[in-house]
Amino acid sequence: MNHAVILAGGGGTRLWPASRRSHPKQLLPLAANGETLLAATWRRIEGLFDRRWVVTAASQAEGVAQAIPELEIGRLLAEPEPRNTAAAVGLAAVYAIAGNRDSVLGVLPADHAIADEGAFRDVVARALRLAAEGHIVTIGIKPTHAETGFGWIEPGPAVAYGASSVARFVEKPDRAAAESYLTRGFLWNGGMFFFRADRILDEIRRQLPALAEGLDEIGRAHAGGGAAEVIARIYPRLPSISIDHGVMEGAAGMVTVPGDFGWSDVGSWAALADLRGADAAGNVTLGRAVLLDARDNLVSVDPGGLVALVGVSGLVVVRAGDAVLVLPRERAQEVRDIVKRLEAEGLDAYL
Amino acid sequence: MNHAVILAGGGGTRLWPASRRSHPKQLLPLAANGETLLAATWRRIEGLFDRRWVVTAASQAEGVAQAIPELEIGRLLAEPEPRNTAAAVGLAAVYAIAGNRDSVLGVLPADHAIADEGAFRDVVARALRLAAEGHIVTIGIKPTHAETGFGWIEPGPAVAYGASSVARFVEKPDRAAAESYLTRGFLWNGGMFFFRADRILDEIRRQLPALAEGLDEIGRAHAGGGAAEVIARIYPRLPSISIDHGVMEGAAGMVTVPGDFGWSDVGSWAALADLRGADAAGNVTLGRAVLLDARDNLVSVDPGGLVALVGVSGLVVVRAGDAVLVLPRERAQEVRDIVKRLEAEGLDAYL
Repeated sequence: MNHAVILAGGGGTRLWPASRRSHPKQLLPLAANGETLLAATWRRIEGLFDRRWVVTAASQAEGVAQAIPELEIGRLLAEPEPRNTAAAVGLAAVYAIAGNRDSVLGVLPADHAIADEGAFRDVVARALRLAAEGHIVTIGIKPTHAETGFGWIEPGPAVAYGASSVARFVEKPDRAAAESYLTRGFLWNGGMFFFRADRILDEIRRQLPALAEGLDEIGRAHAGGGAAEVIARIYPRLPSISIDHGVMEGAAGMVTVPGDFGWSDVGSWAALADLRGADAAGNVTLGRAVLLDARDNLVSVDPGGLVALVGVSGLVVVRAGDAVLVLPRERAQEVRDIVKRLEAEGLDAYL
Repeated sequence: MNHAVILAGGGGTRLWPASRRSHPKQLLPLAANGETLLAATWRRIEGLFDRRWVVTAASQAEGVAQAIPELEIGRLLAEPEPRNTAAAVGLAAVYAIAGNRDSVLGVLPADHAIADEGAFRDVVARALRLAAEGHIVTIGIKPTHAETGFGWIEPGPAVAYGASSVARFVEKPDRAAAESYLTRGFLWNGGMFFFRADRILDEIRRQLPALAEGLDEIGRAHAGGGAAEVIARIYPRLPSISIDHGVMEGAAGMVTVPGDFGWSDVGSWAALADLRGADAAGNVTLGRAVLLDARDNLVSVDPGGLVALVGVSGLVVVRAGDAVLVLPRERAQEVRDIVKRLEAEGLDAYL
């Protein structure tokens, strides 16, 4: 039985002020057709999995339920507090395996954009076959440039279904290393993993025994009829580490299926602009804007709002709720400096 | 008896999006001490006049009353619809003269900023004396630069109290003419006039007979106990012309008192920026803003809002209600093009 595990617990502020701690990127209508990224993630795997789970923060459960009206309440796993992705994946594995010992899981971030859904579905289908055969599988995104903001994967010898073994995972590189990886055929780690539930729980037991112990207790409670109370007590004390660092980098027999399907992590306003069609003047506009003699700007405006630009170029201008952001497109990463400043000045209400 | 007539009927959008049709500049807290421009206009003439009237649009009467809590209801003259300043001044003259045949009026726009209130009060006191002696008096603002956006006054021979006769009024000049006026000692026409009520009504009768006829009818109704109904019927049909063009330019025996008191018509976001102290990086900030590596910007943010800038310079960035404006400071006049575009696109709700 195939289970999709959609990780929707992120609380990033890289798209601040549209994304807020309580209303993160996956709940924003940033998909090309106006869906939320979460709803698009849910929809595009329709039919590939027998069950679809969503793991999210308790504080975002309501937003998740609104974004996916058809999500059954029992498939919404709410973390009392975020403990990073290893715990989230482990929790989902415990729930999946309870229904079927042979469960295969596909872990999918909720906040990515994918342009070519057919190509994506083909890659997922192959990854599921490899996972059913016992591999731990990661999708290796075909890189388009020497990105320093992602982890990379060095592929090894070919396996089957177009997959290769993983020679190694490499951390976010510097510019020179990224250039070298690009020419040597390395792939981006897009955080999409596939494996049998028992296989991942064995790896967690081997590499993260404290997490395994907590998951065992949750599993026993779940088998006994209800784990809510145990989760509320135990989950906040689970080790907080990513599935990438905590499990994948140390796992044996990893394979990667290369994927080339117009992927983006929508990791900045500039990345979002790259996803959208620009008008003749190079402007990308989301929402209501009036642009006069303005070129190559990205403007994002929330419903009911209006942004007017005259004579500016290359800017990101965002109006969202009570806040406005203005910065040059090539400095879009510096939103994080704004976030840090707001934290430092006690203006968390705007985050 | 001296009457101040504060003209607060303007519905300008030069400070859009902070100023809106229903909430114009005079009702914005733009005075240096955080007062509205209207309240500052009211306060700074305290003691110079026996009575203070405010003429405004009916749609702004509530905002005016809020801005000046001490304004008696009988001194608030609400125009059923705006008919420009000649009608507004005529209406006030009719009301003033009903109380006292020898009334002297001082007409003051509600939406200007004045830095040196002592100097201003001295000029007003002299203007009132000249008006009581039968002159029609205009304050001639000592120019600071070759402004093409104002009308200018050419002073003639000296009269008394530091005043000169007015040789002529000149329309908004081109750049070369403005440069010439600056060197030749011309003054700016700041739209502040002083005269006996009977004198101005005579001039209106001579130059604008249709307006005089309407005012006569309003005067009779007012003497009869109540003019509200007559005003509602007649006022919308009065000729719509400014007091400058309709009366002053054709009036005999005009004099001007030169004034040098840090005057500004706050006619653009750039003008507002010039009024305020900038921080070490040249930024002028009204409201809550976070500025990183940002220079020489003007940021205006409404209460509760936040504007964050990174790495931009020389911009005007305004967040007000549902709208945001971004444009270079030196192009601040082009707000009017935004306003025109919003009108053309049927987006008047934002105006």
